[in-house]
Amino acid sequence: MPRLWEKGVRVDPIVHAFCTGEDPQLDGRLVEAEVYGSIAHAAGLARIGVLTKAEYGRLHGALVSLLGRWRSGSFAVRPADEDVHTAVENHLTERLGPVGKKIHAGRSRNDQVQVDLRLFGREALLRIEELLLRAAGSLATVAARFEDCPVPGYTHTRRGMPSSIGLWAGAYAEGFLDDRRLLLAALDLVDQCPLGSAAGYGVPLPLDREYVARLLGFPKVQANTLAVQNSRGKLESAALQACAMILLDAGRLAGDLILFSTEEFGFVRLPEELCTGSSIMPNKKNPDALELIRGSGAEVAAQAAATWQMTAKLPAGYQRDLQLTKGPFLRGLERTASCLLVLDLCLRRLEVDRDRCLAACSSEIFAADRALDWVRTGVPFRTAYRRVADELRHAPESGARPATRAEALANLRSKRHTGGPGNLGLARLGRELRAAERDRVRRARRADLRALLQARTPPRG
Amino acid sequence: MPRLWEKGVRVDPIVHAFCTGEDPQLDGRLVEAEVYGSIAHAAGLARIGVLTKAEYGRLHGALVSLLGRWRSGSFAVRPADEDVHTAVENHLTERLGPVGKKIHAGRSRNDQVQVDLRLFGREALLRIEELLLRAAGSLATVAARFEDCPVPGYTHTRRGMPSSIGLWAGAYAEGFLDDRRLLLAALDLVDQCPLGSAAGYGVPLPLDREYVARLLGFPKVQANTLAVQNSRGKLESAALQACAMILLDAGRLAGDLILFSTEEFGFVRLPEELCTGSSIMPNKKNPDALELIRGSGAEVAAQAAATWQMTAKLPAGYQRDLQLTKGPFLRGLERTASCLLVLDLCLRRLEVDRDRCLAACSSEIFAADRALDWVRTGVPFRTAYRRVADELRHAPESGARPATRAEALANLRSKRHTGGPGNLGLARLGRELRAAERDRVRRARRADLRALLQARTPPRG
Amino acid sequence: MPRLWEKGVRVDPIVHAFCTGEDPQLDGRLVEAEVYGSIAHAAGLARIGVLTKAEYGRLHGALVSLLGRWRSGSFAVRPADEDVHTAVENHLTERLGPVGKKIHAGRSRNDQVQVDLRLFGREALLRIEELLLRAAGSLATVAARFEDCPVPGYTHTRRGMPSSIGLWAGAYAEGFLDDRRLLLAALDLVDQCPLGSAAGYGVPLPLDREYVARLLGFPKVQANTLAVQNSRGKLESAALQACAMILLDAGRLAGDLILFSTEEFGFVRLPEELCTGSSIMPNKKNPDALELIRGSGAEVAAQAAATWQMTAKLPAGYQRDLQLTKGPFLRGLERTASCLLVLDLCLRRLEVDRDRCLAACSSEIFAADRALDWVRTGVPFRTAYRRVADELRHAPESGARPATRAEALANLRSKRHTGGPGNLGLARLGRELRAAERDRVRRARRADLRALLQARTPPRG
Amino acid sequence: MPRLWEKGVRVDPIVHAFCTGEDPQLDGRLVEAEVYGSIAHAAGLARIGVLTKAEYGRLHGALVSLLGRWRSGSFAVRPADEDVHTAVENHLTERLGPVGKKIHAGRSRNDQVQVDLRLFGREALLRIEELLLRAAGSLATVAARFEDCPVPGYTHTRRGMPSSIGLWAGAYAEGFLDDRRLLLAALDLVDQCPLGSAAGYGVPLPLDREYVARLLGFPKVQANTLAVQNSRGKLESAALQACAMILLDAGRLAGDLILFSTEEFGFVRLPEELCTGSSIMPNKKNPDALELIRGSGAEVAAQAAATWQMTAKLPAGYQRDLQLTKGPFLRGLERTASCLLVLDLCLRRLEVDRDRCLAACSSEIFAADRALDWVRTGVPFRTAYRRVADELRHAPESGARPATRAEALANLRSKRHTGGPGNLGLARLGRELRAAERDRVRRARRADLRALLQARTPPRG
Repeated sequence: MPRLWEKGVRVDPIVHAFCTGEDPQLDGRLVEAEVYGSIAHAAGLARIGVLTKAEYGRLHGALVSLLGRWRSGSFAVRPADEDVHTAVENHLTERLGPVGKKIHAGRSRNDQVQVDLRLFGREALLRIEELLLRAAGSLATVAARFEDCPVPGYTHTRRGMPSSIGLWAGAYAEGFLDDRRLLLAALDLVDQCPLGSAAGYGVPLPLDREYVARLLGFPKVQANTLAVQNSRGKLESAALQACAMILLDAGRLAGDLILFSTEEFGFVRLPEELCTGSSIMPNKKNPDALELIRGSGAEVAAQAAATWQMTAKLPAGYQRDLQLTKGPFLRGLERTASCLLVLDLCLRRLEVDRDRCLAACSSEIFAADRALDWVRTGVPFRTAYRRVADELRHAPESGARPATRAEALANLRSKRHTGGPGNLGLARLGRELRAAERDRVRRARRADLRALLQARTPPRG
Repeated sequence: MPRLWEKGVRVDPIVHAFCTGEDPQLDGRLVEAEVYGSIAHAAGLARIGVLTKAEYGRLHGALVSLLGRWRSGSFAVRPADEDVHTAVENHLTERLGPVGKKIHAGRSRNDQVQVDLRLFGREALLRIEELLLRAAGSLATVAARFEDCPVPGYTHTRRGMPSSIGLWAGAYAEGFLDDRRLLLAALDLVDQCPLGSAAGYGVPLPLDREYVARLLGFPKVQANTLAVQNSRGKLESAALQACAMILLDAGRLAGDLILFSTEEFGFVRLPEELCTGSSIMPNKKNPDALELIRGSGAEVAAQAAATWQMTAKLPAGYQRDLQLTKGPFLRGLERTASCLLVLDLCLRRLEVDRDRCLAACSSEIFAADRALDWVRTGVPFRTAYRRVADELRHAPESGARPATRAEALANLRSKRHTGGPGNLGLARLGRELRAAERDRVRRARRADLRALLQARTPPRG
Repeated sequence: MPRLWEKGVRVDPIVHAFCTGEDPQLDGRLVEAEVYGSIAHAAGLARIGVLTKAEYGRLHGALVSLLGRWRSGSFAVRPADEDVHTAVENHLTERLGPVGKKIHAGRSRNDQVQVDLRLFGREALLRIEELLLRAAGSLATVAARFEDCPVPGYTHTRRGMPSSIGLWAGAYAEGFLDDRRLLLAALDLVDQCPLGSAAGYGVPLPLDREYVARLLGFPKVQANTLAVQNSRGKLESAALQACAMILLDAGRLAGDLILFSTEEFGFVRLPEELCTGSSIMPNKKNPDALELIRGSGAEVAAQAAATWQMTAKLPAGYQRDLQLTKGPFLRGLERTASCLLVLDLCLRRLEVDRDRCLAACSSEIFAADRALDWVRTGVPFRTAYRRVADELRHAPESGARPATRAEALANLRSKRHTGGPGNLGLARLGRELRAAERDRVRRARRADLRALLQARTPPRG
Repeated sequence: MPRLWEKGVRVDPIVHAFCTGEDPQLDGRLVEAEVYGSIAHAAGLARIGVLTKAEYGRLHGALVSLLGRWRSGSFAVRPADEDVHTAVENHLTERLGPVGKKIHAGRSRNDQVQVDLRLFGREALLRIEELLLRAAGSLATVAARFEDCPVPGYTHTRRGMPSSIGLWAGAYAEGFLDDRRLLLAALDLVDQCPLGSAAGYGVPLPLDREYVARLLGFPKVQANTLAVQNSRGKLESAALQACAMILLDAGRLAGDLILFSTEEFGFVRLPEELCTGSSIMPNKKNPDALELIRGSGAEVAAQAAATWQMTAKLPAGYQRDLQLTKGPFLRGLERTASCLLVLDLCLRRLEVDRDRCLAACSSEIFAADRALDWVRTGVPFRTAYRRVADELRHAPESGARPATRAEALANLRSKRHTGGPGNLGLARLGRELRAAERDRVRRARRADLRALLQARTPPRG
């Protein structure tokens, strides 16, 4: 079968292979979206009379059957086909003859690939949101269980003030909720319907773009046809940047767990089934999964940067450079989801050593509190600070150290302003997590397109 | 005056200079925010009895007077002071004695710098939003004026299909509205009150964090005290990433203008007062401003990446690395604003050469439309495509070229689906722009803190 | 077969899949290097008596046979094996029993993967060098053919001064020679033998590391065992940065060709067999290959950044994050090579339109030369500059334009200082290219390890 | 005084300020280079008769005097002057009249700025090389002093095998020597003379470019005039990438020192005069300087990326975007130097706690060595590995732990292959460092241009 655009001259095979690139491998991920997008486009053509209902029916049948073949492994995107769009159109033409040749009226590969990426991206972002909320929930659980587990609070990787495992875990949960806001902003952009932009300049057909958008579960048509093409690469980068932000937090959390589980710190332990070993050192129990989470941030941040840079400085409209944004986008979303899945697993099975946490609460970490004791008696803070510094300098062992677990706990509880270790606000956090989950489920339902596979006649819309 | 933390040992001067870094130069931008934050903190201390009303009043007076000195050039952050926080506290102590030494109770430089950066950042992001909307408005004006100016639509930097200057300008306007959504998500994160986190572990004082947040115009307290510290660097990066996204679009727009104003394209002209010349070539009229806008995207994207990377892999809580995020944050926001200001200027004074635009609409760009003509007669699209391709191959000059401006316009008007060149949706765009502007004004009003300078007694809150 | 490090506890399958990641797909590229590295390591163990000559012989035979299987498609790295190192060791143990279990004495997967990556990297960098020199040679040919083809020299994408296609092509050739120096510096670092570092802390065996290095064609042992581990990620990043620099130039060259081949500029043409078309516009002939070269720079630069960031801030020695540097390294090297291959193809088949080049040499581009004419009569340059500027302003059509091709050529030839359009130095350039090629061939010969496959007894070394 | 290129139309002041940007602040760093470059250019003009010897003499005198004023603070680059090039030319014209107006013959600001940046860059890179070698020397000293100080060798931030502080320090010294090779490759590129490229297209004057290059201490003319302009941005990025590589190692070293000096590890201590404190916690002694070194890598890597991206996709020749590469280049080089200076200070004053190092050498880290003991008796490695793993599992306390310092030392000494902890190769390292330093001094001498300030008549060259 020919490429869609071939007009008699054979392209040099080296150039063809170079231009095809990774598409045949990558595009497997897009077969499902291509089928949904093609059904919706066919329904749109039927709505304006470019296809008859019968032609729509035959296209629908062939597309649903193609999806079945794909799922059973008997359909693939071959390198000779270049990409999923060509593979599907060629398949329809082979099977249906002239009817297959009608499907491309009023669309371009440029907007097809965008539909596919947005459907894939929307699903992936919703999955990432789900896993993010799940991990935040696990953190909230850790926070609740270890709200009363004193441990030093570090700044500059030095013991600073008293803290708790609860404060530490709660902080990451709140961080994830902030990340979610960035994620949803990116999802808003992705969740716009590009179909009908054609090559970026519209078509002389009275396409009903709102109808097609509804069929595909998009809350909004992306209007200006050139704006659709201009947003390629930008949407990908926005989504990946939100993912990179999630992995910024996830990576720091993983790093904390690696540090806290060293022989030297010993605050937490990972069960052995989540660790791996060394090929040469029989003694090793390594936190590989956490290290890979930590390292994945750089991967996804680089993918965000790559998609941004590939897009930057291009003239308006489609340029082939944009094809290169596909790999980073697909891989980056998958990587983010898998990191969150594994992180959540680690959080759920995390073991905390309360004794080592307490033992690390050495006397000097109570110094700032000691200065504030004096403040309450009217001493100016800076004076109190210098007084305590002098005490520590001359008698480092006799600081006002809470000697017992009970005293350490009392200290934590004395920080009862909003968000302090004595007032973590876990009830509020729980409410926010539940509300977020409800929102997510609602969005996921709207994005569920399976009904399209049943629509043997063009849906009312 | 000593550094706040000095306890007798002099720091090596090389190390001191290295640690101080650019702060004395950069922190001038933060004096105003430092004053507002300190007034609010003092009011908070008064509210819980750590300061008397009289002490608050003296601190308020000294802070307002310091701001006056700063504005008149008689206060500066000296290198010996390290940073604005020390400079202000030292100034208060010099001027007020023991009362000055009281201001630091219940706060840390770690959360002071965050307050300052958020107040600065909020104002800068609101200014960027204003300029973004203004540029989008100018684009909408261009779109309205040149909706009927045919010009080729390019893909792959090759003439593809008929387009219009209106479609081109409208596309960027819509792109800016998408960028605004990312900007507002970043603003949401920045617009949380960090005060009261102290070093990240709270303080044993009953701080009323909600009260202080209200005084500073924050709609929300950032609760968990360690979450506050963990968000340093992340917020900066989120804001800069949104800016980089704006500059992605602005840079492509600038690039289009550079290309379209070449001798070879000639679609647009920039007036001479917006151009510069060459030191050696008397003939040059160069679009330097547009080139700098194009290049600034890389600058701000790198600043976003830098702040992300500086933060990545750090343990929870404050680490000194984070100080390095200040320069990129301040500079990147300023750069983004100045690019938008200048871009808007160029858009307002842009001249379009309608004749050269039309002259470039060579016959072959109507080929896809010709194929769709056949589609409307029942020919399958792929068949029609090949037929037109053959015609072009054998008789390239005789394509169905609209020979006149009127014909070209009729072609444009035939693309009347949503967002097509015959249906730009400028009325809807105008409504969106006006609604966005109303929102912005409302947010800007809430963020206006000037009343604090009048508050000689602690505000009710 | 078990993983090398398993000690009774089964790893959670989600964690196992996450840690294995892309290795099974990527590691196919490393089978050859793994075989060479294992033969050399076995020879090293034989040299110090840890293996008998007979044991070496059996291992050598099994490794050579495994390579044959791999080449014929009957050996693969299975996901259950995790990576190529395990797959090969498991294969040896399956086939040879106890002798297979001996191969891992004195080595760790950490240095195995490094051997593999350096052998792969060395070959890839040498291939890139070859293609870079070839492309530079093609540019030199273009420069020689079109030394006498006047065309405007642009600054700010505006016509500035007279230039020639020869000057333009020669500039990129020289740029590539600069890039080669960066490439060779990276190759120098990659071309060090890591074997013998074990897990980074050496082994209590008298390994003869210099012997093993010689067998593998390395000119140098990378000495300190921890330095070997510390250089993981850094070498990868250094190689990719050199590649990104090549693609910076290649991408600008591709961009020039895209611009120069527009309908509007028309200086050059690409033959149709190097172009592709559009799925919707029958009229398009698109320079996709050039666009992908332009876009690939961002991909490889991001891979360089990713490997750098993954490595940054890690403690000394091996951390699992480093595994993530493998994909970017392998893919980035391959991408760079394929871009150069295709770029060279485009350069060889490039067509130049001498008439359009000349036609673009409008009068005003001779303005600087006109000012310098006056300088030769004693007028100060700045005075002459202003005089010419006035002329142009008042009589833009009457500038001293060389009206004919002969006059334009005479103008070019008047710039006869080193590197000017009248003195391109192509003879010197040719000598440099030939000397570089001789160097490359010499290095490639040293890196040819095929003799190891014949070495049934441990080589003398 | 007018801008050099003004021809009657006043540029919009907003555009002027935007285009001038940071140049007035940044260009102070370039005054010295501008003076040297201008003297050499004037000498070159005198050599070909465009200036008389007397005119050269007057220009030389005025330039030397201007440098004196600059050093004494009575000359500055004013915003109205735009940049150092204009400021100097305007100064010469003000002072010398028509002779001042002659200096610009045969040069453009485009190559002036390149001369300045290369002279500045060369000096900065040589300074960085000096500090790098100094830090490597300090590491070699630490290695020699603590070759016999056992400490665990970590992988995955877990104790793995026995190591020594000597092995650790020596690894970083060798890493720095690798980094130096990348630095010198970048220096090679920077150290080419651009003067004579004019706007990238040469001039119709018989400039003796080799003569000017010799005067400025460049070993090589960068020949093709357009290649000179094309290399702007690339050279900057290459230099910054080399710096980023240095900071990759320096940052990991700083991170190790931060980790090793925690209360929990306790292997090393930094003296108090190299640390700073907290504004709220009187107890803190923070390693701020090390943290800033760690964080600076991201800064310089981002600057390298920014300069690369600013340059990418630009058409051949000068574009104004490239101006934006100046700030990152100047700041990045300065940052790299200051990090190395402070790192070296920390290394020189580093205190090692031999007892805590030894105490951390817990029994299980000898497991791999124990397996290799069995290998020496003929047991296959994989069998021995499993045997030791079983022992550890069943009797974790009874591993073959060297119980004493003497036994631990004997273990280290048993790893006597090249680069092992028993054979650090410090003599070889010392020789390499001394040879490198001799090289550097030789290069620095060639780059010393002070003689030009005495050259009242054009030097013979």
